[in-house]
Amino acid sequence: MTEKEAKEALAACRSKIDGVDRKIVALLNERTGIVEEIGRVKEQMAMPIYEPKREDEVFANAVGSNGGPLPSDAVKRIFERIIDEMRVVQKVKMKKDTGC
Amino acid sequence: MTEKEAKEALAACRSKIDGVDRKIVALLNERTGIVEEIGRVKEQMAMPIYEPKREDEVFANAVGSNGGPLPSDAVKRIFERIIDEMRVVQKVKMKKDTGC
Repeated sequence: MTEKEAKEALAACRSKIDGVDRKIVALLNERTGIVEEIGRVKEQMAMPIYEPKREDEVFANAVGSNGGPLPSDAVKRIFERIIDEMRVVQKVKMKKDTGC
Repeated sequence: MTEKEAKEALAACRSKIDGVDRKIVALLNERTGIVEEIGRVKEQMAMPIYEPKREDEVFANAVGSNGGPLPSDAVKRIFERIIDEMRVVQKVKMKKDTGC
């Protein structure tokens, strides 16, 4: 492979990654919208935001659908971050809604 | 909203989230496959894995495509985790390929 060919191959891969990442961002926002809806229901019913059992289900679903090549422990760590961020959104949203 | 209605609403939201999460896992694996391809090109050309400038581009692309409701700093933190995990995959893969 010449240096020119390598550069072209990297550029093509990066363009594909950018496209994949934009799809991931769109799905993260779709997920956030649903989490906000859950927050509204929980707020109305005075239910707790944090439910460890449900978080285990989320991990099981994500890891269970993992066909690789990404290792399952990596999938779990990425979803830990996603869940953490969504929990912040839910808390901020509920504070705004209740005005406190 | 009755307790029954709340439970049904939560179950519906969670089913949607599980579907979104499976799509995210599929995209993460698609991304990993492309990252592995980049690893092969870099290995052949003896290029460094870590390129801070490219990582900045990845963040800029992800945050730039963010239409909310997820805050952009949350998007950035999730992509920091994704990039970290992909870097591990790339390193493990290169070690395997070179037998060291």
